[in-house]
Amino acid sequence: MSLNFDTQVFEKEHIKLSGTDEYIVRGGRHLFDRLPDAFAGVKTIGVIGWGSQGPAQAQNLRDSLEKTDVTVKIGLRSGSSSWKAAESHGFTEASGTLGEMYSVIRESDLVLLLISDAAQAALYSEVFAAMKPGATLGLSHGFLLGHLKSIGASFPERINVIAVCPKGMGPSVRRLYEQGKDVNGAGINTSFCVEQDIDGRATDIAIGWSVAIGAPFTFKTSLEMEYRSDIFGERGILLGAVHGIVELLYRRYTAAGVDPEQAYRDSVESITGPISETISHRGIKAVYDELSASDKPVFEQAYNAAYGPCFEVLFEIYQEVHSGNEIRSVILAGERLQRFAWSKIDTTTMWKVGEKVRSERDSHTTGVHAFTAGAYVACMMAQIDVLTEFGHAYSEIVNESVIEAVDSLNPYMHFKGVAYMVDNCSTTARLGARKWAPCFDYRLAQGGFAALDAGSIDSRPMKKFDTHKVHEAVSILAEMRPSVDIAVN
Amino acid sequence: MSLNFDTQVFEKEHIKLSGTDEYIVRGGRHLFDRLPDAFAGVKTIGVIGWGSQGPAQAQNLRDSLEKTDVTVKIGLRSGSSSWKAAESHGFTEASGTLGEMYSVIRESDLVLLLISDAAQAALYSEVFAAMKPGATLGLSHGFLLGHLKSIGASFPERINVIAVCPKGMGPSVRRLYEQGKDVNGAGINTSFCVEQDIDGRATDIAIGWSVAIGAPFTFKTSLEMEYRSDIFGERGILLGAVHGIVELLYRRYTAAGVDPEQAYRDSVESITGPISETISHRGIKAVYDELSASDKPVFEQAYNAAYGPCFEVLFEIYQEVHSGNEIRSVILAGERLQRFAWSKIDTTTMWKVGEKVRSERDSHTTGVHAFTAGAYVACMMAQIDVLTEFGHAYSEIVNESVIEAVDSLNPYMHFKGVAYMVDNCSTTARLGARKWAPCFDYRLAQGGFAALDAGSIDSRPMKKFDTHKVHEAVSILAEMRPSVDIAVN
Repeated sequence: MSLNFDTQVFEKEHIKLSGTDEYIVRGGRHLFDRLPDAFAGVKTIGVIGWGSQGPAQAQNLRDSLEKTDVTVKIGLRSGSSSWKAAESHGFTEASGTLGEMYSVIRESDLVLLLISDAAQAALYSEVFAAMKPGATLGLSHGFLLGHLKSIGASFPERINVIAVCPKGMGPSVRRLYEQGKDVNGAGINTSFCVEQDIDGRATDIAIGWSVAIGAPFTFKTSLEMEYRSDIFGERGILLGAVHGIVELLYRRYTAAGVDPEQAYRDSVESITGPISETISHRGIKAVYDELSASDKPVFEQAYNAAYGPCFEVLFEIYQEVHSGNEIRSVILAGERLQRFAWSKIDTTTMWKVGEKVRSERDSHTTGVHAFTAGAYVACMMAQIDVLTEFGHAYSEIVNESVIEAVDSLNPYMHFKGVAYMVDNCSTTARLGARKWAPCFDYRLAQGGFAALDAGSIDSRPMKKFDTHKVHEAVSILAEMRPSVDIAVN
Repeated sequence: MSLNFDTQVFEKEHIKLSGTDEYIVRGGRHLFDRLPDAFAGVKTIGVIGWGSQGPAQAQNLRDSLEKTDVTVKIGLRSGSSSWKAAESHGFTEASGTLGEMYSVIRESDLVLLLISDAAQAALYSEVFAAMKPGATLGLSHGFLLGHLKSIGASFPERINVIAVCPKGMGPSVRRLYEQGKDVNGAGINTSFCVEQDIDGRATDIAIGWSVAIGAPFTFKTSLEMEYRSDIFGERGILLGAVHGIVELLYRRYTAAGVDPEQAYRDSVESITGPISETISHRGIKAVYDELSASDKPVFEQAYNAAYGPCFEVLFEIYQEVHSGNEIRSVILAGERLQRFAWSKIDTTTMWKVGEKVRSERDSHTTGVHAFTAGAYVACMMAQIDVLTEFGHAYSEIVNESVIEAVDSLNPYMHFKGVAYMVDNCSTTARLGARKWAPCFDYRLAQGGFAALDAGSIDSRPMKKFDTHKVHEAVSILAEMRPSVDIAVN
């Protein structure tokens, strides 16, 4: 896969990330006047679905295209419960900006298919059939390609297929765009993919889409690499791994006699608060560098103990994603969920303690807990190493495994707890995180931590930490991030 | 799939199990004189591999065929580390009963392929190519069919394909056969499959094989149903579920202030000792019926809390097995295990406590712990219900989910702990149990037990327990079991 691309409308910029050449396009409101060129021939953008990304992207697109003659129109199933929600945001049948899903698809020149993965898997052939020849299909992650591959199907040849994949949940995509009205450049970064380009317009449509939803910058990847890193990442450090790690750490601390509320602060609060803030503002290495002399060896112990088990579980997850197993599991779960309703996972004592801790935050300060930091950072580094080994570029790795974690997901987790967050993600993410979190827990408990407690330490992981090439990439990419913190309330 | 079959050599017996018709053949030493008829045309039986089943079945076959002219010959890779072990059991090149794997396959009329699943997946095409036309391939479980299906391959048409699947590990297959020399009928039950019958001999060869390894009775299944129930069962109550349940119960009891050693007795020891003995001797329902009036409501609470989450996880596992995902995972793990050595899972505090508890067994009596019993029995019943729903016959269900648990695996677990047992099974079983145990743990903790602790109880599961049809099948099949307990030391 080439990371390079040609754009007729925007400026491509070359960046060097830890020795590799990558290319990006920076966004910004000053580029909105180029959108008519980027969207040449696009009269109607159909945004299909009103879940997480749908409302955010539709509103951002409508605002950015305000002074053009491009119409942004929402398409929903007849009788969809989201109909009213779309109307309350100003998309109405009367104004020609809301309609039945397949009608909207038939009349759209650019179809942004933002329905759930299960719905994509169930409806893709009708969606393809409804699209105009020469139209462009836009996705916001690569799941559909993964599903098509797993069943031996493919995209129709008569359309462009592109993707713009925001590195944050829908609500952040909207919130940072709104903040960006005052603070130029605020927004969520994206990657973009050009899977099929039948008329040479696909790249500029994709970049235009990215600029219009407010991305500070966008980098190129392929749909294949995107879905792998996306589905992998949410099973790893973004959701599954962080859930398993905090369950284990909370148990470990309370078993050692730490009071439950303090144990919650030392595990969950430390990660979703100060550890994330440190990484966000000063990089991964700063978490260690800023520790006291007495805390550094504690971090090192946890890091050395956690890196190996995390690497193994992450490697296994990557294989399972790559093989198509995870996609097949999601489809099977769709059938199962017709019969068994979702249960909640933030039901245990720990998460009840969390509610209390959050409500009393003003009365306690939570710092970077050295052991927690060592375990969490080890898992993040292991994820970076697995993605590197499987050929992902640094833009993708850092955005999906570092920036998305500390700028988008962890702040939401800080607001309501990790388990709550898991149960409020997409079905694909939720299923995977719930499946793999307990594996991280057991593997760490039985592996690294049991060895640590038995006095056996493998000191190799920490030796590679200081000089890891990713630190340079993180600091370069951090400068290109949203210029404001993501507020959550 | 028909559960009926025709035999020219043995007596087929009709049994009615909870209203369904099934057919079996009872074994016994008095039938050994029929083996020459059953094995008509078979001069050499090649037993390929010296793992768990290989040594047991090869020795049993040799003993049972002592007075015939059938040769039992071990086939191993050149340079195999098992060569010496086979020699020490009297299989030698000098006597023509030990040789290089493919040579043995080429000269055998019946090839029992008892190498590991990974080896079967890697070598099957060479094995098929080496077999004589008209020879019979014998398997001891259905993994190879599952693998062939997952890659779109099939068995060659010029051979018979049968299976005899003992409902216990190799060491029990040998031990009970030896005990059977004195106690007629001692042995491990089997199922048999006739996947391809090119000459009308396949059924009698399969039944003869079963009689010769000492099975008290054998029932018919298909290779497809066998591998599903086998791979599913070891992920469920046989290994994975019991591991996850005891980890959770031990944690729950210690968190409630129970001393660690007592918590270990109340969880692990209670299941692998008295609960298993009760089920083995007096059936599943007896576990509840024999409780005191004050213990019965405790059992009911645990049963009602555990049934639903266990059913859901088990349903998910069945889907994952059925879809081929679990088989693909095993193959992927084979690659991964070239790079990452196996870790051990009995490393945590709980299993250290277990060592001490086992060494001091004489000083404490462990009884049926009502809460533990409720949770364990609920999971066993959920497994029975999932298998019934997917069309398995009671012989298969009861043998693989009840008798194999309480007569074969749990006694071994009683000897060394559950986690140790998991790490000493076949790679396929070990991988699956390690993967699913933590899922049972989390799902039970977050689901049923959290609801129970919050005072919310679904009383429906227990209402179906008393009158469940399986109890009759268990009592009928229990009478046909090995006539001695499996000794472990």
